[in-house]
Amino acid sequence: MFVRMSETISVIGGGLSGSLLSIYLAKRGFQVNLFERRPDMRTNRIYAGKSINLALSTRGLRALERIGLDKEILEDAIPMYGRMMHSRTGELNYHPYGKEGQAINSVSRGRLNLKLIELASAYPNISMHFNARCTDVDLNKAAATFELEDGSVKTFEANRIMGTDGAFAATRGRLQITDRFNYSQQYLHVGYKELAIPAGENGSFLMEKNALHIWPRGSFMMIALPNPAGDFTCTLFMPFEGENSFDKLKTREEVSRFFEEQFPDAVSMMPGLLDDFFANPTSSLVTVRCYPWVREDKLALLGDAAHAVVPFYGQGMNCSFEDCVVMDDCIEKYGDDWARIFDEYQKERKPNADAISELAIQNYYEMADKVGDAHFLHKKHIEHELTELYPDIFKSQYELTTFSLSPYKYALDQGKKNDALLERIIAEKAESKITDPAYMAGLWHLIQ
Amino acid sequence: MFVRMSETISVIGGGLSGSLLSIYLAKRGFQVNLFERRPDMRTNRIYAGKSINLALSTRGLRALERIGLDKEILEDAIPMYGRMMHSRTGELNYHPYGKEGQAINSVSRGRLNLKLIELASAYPNISMHFNARCTDVDLNKAAATFELEDGSVKTFEANRIMGTDGAFAATRGRLQITDRFNYSQQYLHVGYKELAIPAGENGSFLMEKNALHIWPRGSFMMIALPNPAGDFTCTLFMPFEGENSFDKLKTREEVSRFFEEQFPDAVSMMPGLLDDFFANPTSSLVTVRCYPWVREDKLALLGDAAHAVVPFYGQGMNCSFEDCVVMDDCIEKYGDDWARIFDEYQKERKPNADAISELAIQNYYEMADKVGDAHFLHKKHIEHELTELYPDIFKSQYELTTFSLSPYKYALDQGKKNDALLERIIAEKAESKITDPAYMAGLWHLIQ
Repeated sequence: MFVRMSETISVIGGGLSGSLLSIYLAKRGFQVNLFERRPDMRTNRIYAGKSINLALSTRGLRALERIGLDKEILEDAIPMYGRMMHSRTGELNYHPYGKEGQAINSVSRGRLNLKLIELASAYPNISMHFNARCTDVDLNKAAATFELEDGSVKTFEANRIMGTDGAFAATRGRLQITDRFNYSQQYLHVGYKELAIPAGENGSFLMEKNALHIWPRGSFMMIALPNPAGDFTCTLFMPFEGENSFDKLKTREEVSRFFEEQFPDAVSMMPGLLDDFFANPTSSLVTVRCYPWVREDKLALLGDAAHAVVPFYGQGMNCSFEDCVVMDDCIEKYGDDWARIFDEYQKERKPNADAISELAIQNYYEMADKVGDAHFLHKKHIEHELTELYPDIFKSQYELTTFSLSPYKYALDQGKKNDALLERIIAEKAESKITDPAYMAGLWHLIQ
Repeated sequence: MFVRMSETISVIGGGLSGSLLSIYLAKRGFQVNLFERRPDMRTNRIYAGKSINLALSTRGLRALERIGLDKEILEDAIPMYGRMMHSRTGELNYHPYGKEGQAINSVSRGRLNLKLIELASAYPNISMHFNARCTDVDLNKAAATFELEDGSVKTFEANRIMGTDGAFAATRGRLQITDRFNYSQQYLHVGYKELAIPAGENGSFLMEKNALHIWPRGSFMMIALPNPAGDFTCTLFMPFEGENSFDKLKTREEVSRFFEEQFPDAVSMMPGLLDDFFANPTSSLVTVRCYPWVREDKLALLGDAAHAVVPFYGQGMNCSFEDCVVMDDCIEKYGDDWARIFDEYQKERKPNADAISELAIQNYYEMADKVGDAHFLHKKHIEHELTELYPDIFKSQYELTTFSLSPYKYALDQGKKNDALLERIIAEKAESKITDPAYMAGLWHLIQ
């Protein structure tokens, strides 16, 4: 492999995006310095302070395919073909996510990150620096300063810096104090706490394995994702304050009563509930938007550093991986013109990041509240039929977002048009006519 | 005067709000430490990096009245009773701001700040610390650390801190890294540059003295405010990039040609135009929104530190002064319960700060573009007649914002209702009927 030693790139942040991006850059022959604040996860099992499992879907798989890792990751993943809704009385209601065979995949964040780091370590032109906390960035020199494990401070110069250091990125912090940098951090009124449903005997699954489980309760909800060992990772999403809130769950009695009332079918499968509840942190959920994402040809932000999103569309990692793919494509397309590479990258990605961040917030209300609403479910049912009946004409917002490579912005816009179409069918009481292509022909203009 | 030495308050930022607030607090007997990054303006004439004159109106005057400074400030102010619009061909068009006698007042920022600092220095319980740059805030101890002029670092503990350190506040910077702090900084696509129209012979005014002059040009504009010495401070507001933009004005020839084309009647009064244009900075305009504004009973933000707004409604200082009034009222009302004082303060002010920040952005488009639009001017004309005909029933948004103490949120909402009423009158071609109370009686429900 030819190493373009003259071109050195500092990648700051060795999480999912940073390790993937380093491999893309290494494959192109650049000399990469990858810096990570935490210890080397190959030798230290550490809690990353983030959710345990993630939903890997089409965009993320495409990004992994580029480095030949998609199949290996899917082997350890559990496909979830639909949502399984649990009512207060324990009734189950299942809705497929897409067409036959389409699934989102529950994968372990830690395992995926480890695989990426291991793969990166095989490249002679990637140098990895763990326990390196970025304390300053010099935008003119593309130099970054780090505090190292032994307390020493070291500055690395490079030709350019790519910031993949997450929602609270130091790289973005440096941009934030430059003139005309737009920035916002908005916290959801809802926080989350991770809990667990352990495996049954012999690693058996105590609930349907191939589904994402939801206990929608209006202003709050619990979800559960399956893990290969037979257990489920549960997450309770709930307002911090107010009637049903973390604020109201201070004692073991309060927690116990709340779960018995709200999630009776789950509570019997959660023997460690009370201990977990008080041992695990209650975390907040932030949406970060900013612009520009780049500084001339010196610095570019990717992933959460550019656009932290809330987790409700399961697209955070998929979107961040797509950033890396687009950056890689721009390098392919614009060669050595880095100012152009960075600018085309940000122009392509910004509207799509804004779209998925809006979709992700909307989806909280959909998952927590609307999936318990009859009109909404009726609409979802018609929508699903249309995707099956007219696969070339009608694509749902969920399908476009999750099972396609169409821009997120297109998915957002198309979702609104689809909604008008569905409301029209319901208003005309024409549910029985949707199988008739002649009837539908008069409506397709609504989604064009 | 009884000094409550047991209660020490650090006020960080000695600009307009900080010096006013310190006086309010000193009058209540608190021990105040006032910290300011810049040198003492009583002995150093320095450029504050902000606009030279400001429009003082009802809210600001009420705040100054509380410390007996309103009359003295008005003596040096120039009342502006309306807008004077200058067309490209030099035609003038005048529109009054309010009813007979209602004016906004052009005052010098520097002189006003100096008066406030001088007044503050007369209080034995205010200690002033200049050249003190805040580098850190300890939220638990209400301690603030400063780098002093000699390079030394000193920490001051207090019972609580009030942050009045402006749009780029260090106090807010500390809050920004606390969990669940919502924050946004959004720059306008428009920047500004200050220019000058000097006085004529014997300090005479070369244009109408008692007006705010506007050269509206659609996507950009120039404005001019009168100063007591007979000169006008001009400000060119224009996009940074694009067709008519600062980006396109790089040479003396380009600037000269642009001004000759766009502002021919002004350019003849601006002998120093080209020198000023290249000597003075092109500055950006930011809107800062955040929440919460307070941290328990330890820290509260006031003024630009809590809500920097763009200058187009002339309400930045007036709004910040109103923050100080509301804080003072809350102390009066809730005594020693500082957690409550701070919380009631932020609940009262936040929606109003959001409203004026929205109004200020809207007003850019109104001043630059709409005041040159026939439909808009027709509407403004009817609006003005209604304010004169039905002073007890109909109040314009401008009047409510500028000449009243009604909440900004009310002014924003009422403005939208007024607009519906005006559009209705125009749609019904009923302009001649507005003098008929019977006709109007059928419309008033629109503004209720």
